[in-house]
Amino acid sequence: MSSPLLEQLIEAFRVLPGVGQKSAQRMAYHVLERERAGGQRLADALAAAVDRIGNCERCRDFSETPVCPTCSSASRDVHQLCVVESPADRLAIEQATGYRGLYYVLQGRLSPLDGIGPAELGLDRLASRLAEGEVSELIVATNPTVEGEATAHYLGQLARQYKVRPSRPTHGVPLGGELEYVDRGTLSHAFGSRSEMS
Amino acid sequence: MSSPLLEQLIEAFRVLPGVGQKSAQRMAYHVLERERAGGQRLADALAAAVDRIGNCERCRDFSETPVCPTCSSASRDVHQLCVVESPADRLAIEQATGYRGLYYVLQGRLSPLDGIGPAELGLDRLASRLAEGEVSELIVATNPTVEGEATAHYLGQLARQYKVRPSRPTHGVPLGGELEYVDRGTLSHAFGSRSEMS
Repeated sequence: MSSPLLEQLIEAFRVLPGVGQKSAQRMAYHVLERERAGGQRLADALAAAVDRIGNCERCRDFSETPVCPTCSSASRDVHQLCVVESPADRLAIEQATGYRGLYYVLQGRLSPLDGIGPAELGLDRLASRLAEGEVSELIVATNPTVEGEATAHYLGQLARQYKVRPSRPTHGVPLGGELEYVDRGTLSHAFGSRSEMS
Repeated sequence: MSSPLLEQLIEAFRVLPGVGQKSAQRMAYHVLERERAGGQRLADALAAAVDRIGNCERCRDFSETPVCPTCSSASRDVHQLCVVESPADRLAIEQATGYRGLYYVLQGRLSPLDGIGPAELGLDRLASRLAEGEVSELIVATNPTVEGEATAHYLGQLARQYKVRPSRPTHGVPLGGELEYVDRGTLSHAFGSRSEMS
């Protein structure tokens, strides 16, 4: 290649998820050919984000301040606490639902084989928060995967230990989905837990 | 969202080709969760590339130096000049073929409707280079699109004007392709220009 800097840039783009050699090359050429100002903006935004975004002390979500705006907001319901695996899950719930309680972001899920236990997910801090007695409902919104379910089970037990009511979003057929294309497990669950029509 | 810096980062990722809101979000979270060092490297590489990569004075390819390593190399054949539309095309030819001549990168193609004429592609500089008399063959490797073909036609005339022999990579059935799936235009061309088997 004609430029070592260009080679470094292509290599650097490959840290992004889903970006291989060809896409990285396309991104580098695109920025150099047509988006130099945008490239500079991206460089600045990346450097600032990596440098200044940490985790909220209360909920472990990404935050620029020690306590994030949601946790320090006076208008949120402190009696409900929703546990999610990742900041992306938190954002999805915040955007899709009218939930006004608080969040707790695990930044992972229980996965003993990878050495991720309760300590790595900050569950001791979650426990002491439940012990404070302010939370009355723990909404366990981990992903419906094997590891997510195991984490949910653990969280459910933890909640009961502190006399907090655990709940979990319903599983079932997605809205707009067609029964024919729903996976067996989901369909079986949805069928078994059918409810009376109103 | 919980952090304005995070929002800026997601917005900034969208300058990349093929990256929409969801991918940008995924990239930002990925960098913050798992690749902070890689993110910092990408920020540095981007800033350095945008700042220091310009165009070679001779061939218009990307280069950190006024004249790129290929153009200043003593081991390349100065009698052959290959014209391509973009640096990516140049790289593809350099990697796939044993070509040892020089290149000329148009950084675009003739497109009168978009206001891209011979001047925007630096064809005046190409003409004066052909006038020097060193080049004996002009390999016109523009893309086989409508605009690429028009550009090729123009370049062919330009070459003849300076008594330089213009040539063009053969069109035909791709190696490893199946006749059944080759588009009609290509198949018709390949069939019409069939050559005797040796």
